[in-house]
Amino acid sequence: MKSRTAEILRTVTTATLQMQLMKRGLRHCTMRGVRALDAAAPRLVGSAYTLRFVPFREDQDPLSRLGDTDNPARRAIEDCPAQQVLVMDARGVAHCGTMGDILAMRLKVRGVAGVVTDGGVRDAAAVREVGLPVFCAGPAAPATPAAHIAADRQVPVACGGVAVFPGDMLVGDGDGVVVIPAPLADEVAVAAAEQEGIEGFIFELVRAGRPVIGTYPPTDAVRAQYAQWLAAGRPPVQ
Amino acid sequence: MKSRTAEILRTVTTATLQMQLMKRGLRHCTMRGVRALDAAAPRLVGSAYTLRFVPFREDQDPLSRLGDTDNPARRAIEDCPAQQVLVMDARGVAHCGTMGDILAMRLKVRGVAGVVTDGGVRDAAAVREVGLPVFCAGPAAPATPAAHIAADRQVPVACGGVAVFPGDMLVGDGDGVVVIPAPLADEVAVAAAEQEGIEGFIFELVRAGRPVIGTYPPTDAVRAQYAQWLAAGRPPVQ
Amino acid sequence: MKSRTAEILRTVTTATLQMQLMKRGLRHCTMRGVRALDAAAPRLVGSAYTLRFVPFREDQDPLSRLGDTDNPARRAIEDCPAQQVLVMDARGVAHCGTMGDILAMRLKVRGVAGVVTDGGVRDAAAVREVGLPVFCAGPAAPATPAAHIAADRQVPVACGGVAVFPGDMLVGDGDGVVVIPAPLADEVAVAAAEQEGIEGFIFELVRAGRPVIGTYPPTDAVRAQYAQWLAAGRPPVQ
Amino acid sequence: MKSRTAEILRTVTTATLQMQLMKRGLRHCTMRGVRALDAAAPRLVGSAYTLRFVPFREDQDPLSRLGDTDNPARRAIEDCPAQQVLVMDARGVAHCGTMGDILAMRLKVRGVAGVVTDGGVRDAAAVREVGLPVFCAGPAAPATPAAHIAADRQVPVACGGVAVFPGDMLVGDGDGVVVIPAPLADEVAVAAAEQEGIEGFIFELVRAGRPVIGTYPPTDAVRAQYAQWLAAGRPPVQ
Amino acid sequence: MKSRTAEILRTVTTATLQMQLMKRGLRHCTMRGVRALDAAAPRLVGSAYTLRFVPFREDQDPLSRLGDTDNPARRAIEDCPAQQVLVMDARGVAHCGTMGDILAMRLKVRGVAGVVTDGGVRDAAAVREVGLPVFCAGPAAPATPAAHIAADRQVPVACGGVAVFPGDMLVGDGDGVVVIPAPLADEVAVAAAEQEGIEGFIFELVRAGRPVIGTYPPTDAVRAQYAQWLAAGRPPVQ
Amino acid sequence: MKSRTAEILRTVTTATLQMQLMKRGLRHCTMRGVRALDAAAPRLVGSAYTLRFVPFREDQDPLSRLGDTDNPARRAIEDCPAQQVLVMDARGVAHCGTMGDILAMRLKVRGVAGVVTDGGVRDAAAVREVGLPVFCAGPAAPATPAAHIAADRQVPVACGGVAVFPGDMLVGDGDGVVVIPAPLADEVAVAAAEQEGIEGFIFELVRAGRPVIGTYPPTDAVRAQYAQWLAAGRPPVQ
Repeated sequence: MKSRTAEILRTVTTATLQMQLMKRGLRHCTMRGVRALDAAAPRLVGSAYTLRFVPFREDQDPLSRLGDTDNPARRAIEDCPAQQVLVMDARGVAHCGTMGDILAMRLKVRGVAGVVTDGGVRDAAAVREVGLPVFCAGPAAPATPAAHIAADRQVPVACGGVAVFPGDMLVGDGDGVVVIPAPLADEVAVAAAEQEGIEGFIFELVRAGRPVIGTYPPTDAVRAQYAQWLAAGRPPVQ
Repeated sequence: MKSRTAEILRTVTTATLQMQLMKRGLRHCTMRGVRALDAAAPRLVGSAYTLRFVPFREDQDPLSRLGDTDNPARRAIEDCPAQQVLVMDARGVAHCGTMGDILAMRLKVRGVAGVVTDGGVRDAAAVREVGLPVFCAGPAAPATPAAHIAADRQVPVACGGVAVFPGDMLVGDGDGVVVIPAPLADEVAVAAAEQEGIEGFIFELVRAGRPVIGTYPPTDAVRAQYAQWLAAGRPPVQ
Repeated sequence: MKSRTAEILRTVTTATLQMQLMKRGLRHCTMRGVRALDAAAPRLVGSAYTLRFVPFREDQDPLSRLGDTDNPARRAIEDCPAQQVLVMDARGVAHCGTMGDILAMRLKVRGVAGVVTDGGVRDAAAVREVGLPVFCAGPAAPATPAAHIAADRQVPVACGGVAVFPGDMLVGDGDGVVVIPAPLADEVAVAAAEQEGIEGFIFELVRAGRPVIGTYPPTDAVRAQYAQWLAAGRPPVQ
Repeated sequence: MKSRTAEILRTVTTATLQMQLMKRGLRHCTMRGVRALDAAAPRLVGSAYTLRFVPFREDQDPLSRLGDTDNPARRAIEDCPAQQVLVMDARGVAHCGTMGDILAMRLKVRGVAGVVTDGGVRDAAAVREVGLPVFCAGPAAPATPAAHIAADRQVPVACGGVAVFPGDMLVGDGDGVVVIPAPLADEVAVAAAEQEGIEGFIFELVRAGRPVIGTYPPTDAVRAQYAQWLAAGRPPVQ
Repeated sequence: MKSRTAEILRTVTTATLQMQLMKRGLRHCTMRGVRALDAAAPRLVGSAYTLRFVPFREDQDPLSRLGDTDNPARRAIEDCPAQQVLVMDARGVAHCGTMGDILAMRLKVRGVAGVVTDGGVRDAAAVREVGLPVFCAGPAAPATPAAHIAADRQVPVACGGVAVFPGDMLVGDGDGVVVIPAPLADEVAVAAAEQEGIEGFIFELVRAGRPVIGTYPPTDAVRAQYAQWLAAGRPPVQ
Repeated sequence: MKSRTAEILRTVTTATLQMQLMKRGLRHCTMRGVRALDAAAPRLVGSAYTLRFVPFREDQDPLSRLGDTDNPARRAIEDCPAQQVLVMDARGVAHCGTMGDILAMRLKVRGVAGVVTDGGVRDAAAVREVGLPVFCAGPAAPATPAAHIAADRQVPVACGGVAVFPGDMLVGDGDGVVVIPAPLADEVAVAAAEQEGIEGFIFELVRAGRPVIGTYPPTDAVRAQYAQWLAAGRPPVQ
């Protein structure tokens, strides 16, 4: 992945990225039921470090294992590299937390880019204060052992109904979270930025009274106008 | 519909309207799973202009047809009359957008009263900024062609589990969206305003310490007190 | 229940309480699908006074019975003791209200601690203004008779998937609502406050750079450090 | 209820009964998610004896209480009168049984007409062999205490989304279970039998080639033909 | 469509057809929640004639309109051509019937190939006896007007989550219903028959002990063996 | 595990096993939404060999990889040991098959005990004919690559909402599938057989007229009677 890619991805919306993925035939890259915990938090951009849970079972007693040094859930908190995103496969179980404020703070201190889980987040108010971008199924008081046993890390997982492979690029904003397969990240980022450029111009045209038919999606004529507008230094559209 | 009806409807809640419909035997007029995209947006009032989608199918390639001049989804954006509400039947598919910021801006520019869809809205943050009242199943990054093909316009549709016929009156607020069959709109609006008048008085009585039993729903005695209170110019209730 | 218990419960989170219940083998005490109507409202603490609904049936005509003096739904509003919480079993039907602003005001005036319902709340904006802590399945315009008939009061009920017996202690915050069986309330409250004490210390340790493995859950060494820190008057952690 | 009513109800389908209820304005009388456990079992007819469960909670330990002489679930098995139907409100929890073969045999021996539950049935194969008409959410291995605590008996309950009051008439067949409010049972039974009479004639007309438009629902002409056909001793229709 | 196509489609499974559609990039052609009402009924093959419902609304009174000569639901029964399949869009509402035994008999008499609905079927036992291939969401006692108003015919519809255009080819068996876009029917039918030919050979190889890896999906060597086996008159495989 | 354990497990029901697990504090061992494909097939008993899927994603192209010699889904078919059960984690996606008749035949030929999947099974009629015990979410025409990519084998998985570790004992019958943690299998099997012994006696008592209260669950007196009855050679109960 090019070093500029993450930088570009911080400037484009998941709506645009999803369109670029769809143009490349990828229709299964947008998570369902996973939302920003804090609408005011910064956008999430980073590559995936994965953690997988299986259902709680009484004979496994995950409560007593929380402190085990080889507990995959705790190891993930310590081992997820800075700038990456911790992605948790919680089988979409919204009514159980998969992280609380102490773990969120540790990730923040370690420079991790954020968290994506299709489970819940406990002590949601305190997690919001930590300031880490967190996308989840919502607040939920129960601690992880109420529904989960940590199974393994850095394997392909399902999150919000989407396959996430370690290293895939994740982008999250107010519309949700999009997964960009690692080999496509550079190309999709550039194409998304281009799309947003022309769509910003079209938005101004429409605001000024242009109908959408014949304007959006852009015809060749609109593309030519856009090129002129860019060349002219983006003057106000009337 | 009388010209004053829309004006009255802008002053009464959906909770009151639903009660008036229920008193007339209509129990299937409140949408499910459809909420204001922006809690701070103004109330929605207007008559229905409908658009219907069927599921995406690869042989139909809706992506390439977005720019077609006869695409019903685009025609609806240009043809929905000012003051009316664009109602989209998206089969309750929350994980796919049915509109983004450019289309929202076009509707705003054209004077359309607002949008009701039981699908999602993409680029939700930008749509909120446009300032159009929008009621939907929530934000969703995928563009319409990810799940839908526009089928037809101005036919009876289902939206949020409710039948909507072109011309029905729609009212939306923080509790959701209520559909008022066109022939009942005048009558229901007047009755709702009357109900809110007396309930406002009852609220003051209760605030002042009156029990609800014997007061709410209003007895004849309470109705008489209300008439006196109105005649007295709505003095403070103690 | 000791008189200090409610006071302590006002200081601890539902996440902590759920953990203390889980440590005592109670895994089915956190409601699902029940949220604070107003995120800014104060925390909810109080013991349960229950009301149970069964489904609406046309031959029972609940609309005409709303004013009956023996209507359990209205009696509950007048009889729920001050400091207690009115808990409504609405079978998780989110699309119908179980209370509006007039009833909320009456409860507020009577000193009731708050409301927990797994149904909806109508006129949600007005209910928020009343200022009573309300936890519910969300706003919903339809009035109670649209889906419910009040059946009885002060019986064991289901709310948000949890059994609630009259007198159980309820605590609600941004993560949802936890039910504490009455006989466990004192013990759980004290243990929760202790847990929050040491977790506050651990949070400071982690903020200062400590890894979670070996720190959280606390080892004996961490507990000893915590005791010292307390003894030292909680100095800044570095 | 007239003594002939149950006899008539044994001859008419739930589809016909539901139509007669709908003609009287009752739209909420057909259970959802409740099916005959054994498609080959006889039809179910009888009045309701109700039992209500609330969710399992560990501090209540329902497992150890199964043998209590005052356990409402066991008392219901012994006290439900012969000819009546035991109706269980299991909150629609399909994954837990509410009865097994031993209890089914006891009900059979006691002459109970059958069982309707919106929960599961365990040891379903053995229950089928008992030969009691059982309508439920399907087979489920877990015993009742896995999800339920018996709360009370002979109170209004919800079953399959329908309110059931003690004494209501229940009829079950391959289409499911219909609840007939007790005061309507005589009238609905007679009207249903009449409807089935003329519909049997219409079925023969249609089999012989008559179009449905103008025939079904029956016009006055068809009703006259039916009267003649009855008077003629129901000759073959050609 | 070639005249042989329907004949071929009667010999291949929906599993094979779905695979051939998937090989052509069509992933959204298999209905969900739609099953054969009678497992023993013949396979369903025929092109689509569509009927669309919207939700019941009390002011529309569909019950009184059942006999209207222009009621789309009744017109569809009389107008759906022989050999075609009546496809009903019932928005997946399983708890309400969309057809009973009289209408099924009329379709049978008229030579219609069968019925596909994502709603229920009432009087299911009697419909099974009629012998028409029917695929639906299951038995349901309530008559169509309990949940539906017939809106229009021969428009694109959604059924079981799949878009169905008038004229599309439908095939149903024990695995469910597959929709084949009309222009692809000839090609897909031929390819499916070829796939089943070689898979039948592979099944025999596997029965005789061959591992699946290297055999299924067929390698070139397996394809050559298959050609020889065909040429040899399909001798027993050992 | 003792060699007699599987033999005993073939004689006891999942209902009994679930009760024995519950008596040992295990409440999360019964799958949800997983049923016998063929009610007439023999019971399923065997230890777990696991296979895990993640969601389909277009860039991974699972269709072209079906024949890869290292495809985990195909390797599982060849490597699952005889007498064991192939358990597939398909995230509960019922609308996509995870096996068809060719793979079922291969497993049968290899002596595998059966299959448990929380996904669908395609070509269900042909799979039933193979005669392998198969428990699944139901028939589904789409092939595995329509929704899944095989991720790995012999890891802990979730199936039907239950954690399954390689080597756990699985038992399936008409009530569904129960997972017995490997270390508990011997003990649970013996206790289940004992429970069924006394419950068979109680069933005869109840058939002969004994009330359930005081009989079931068995009191000490009933246990004594049972011992006598066994000693007497199980004479007819009157």
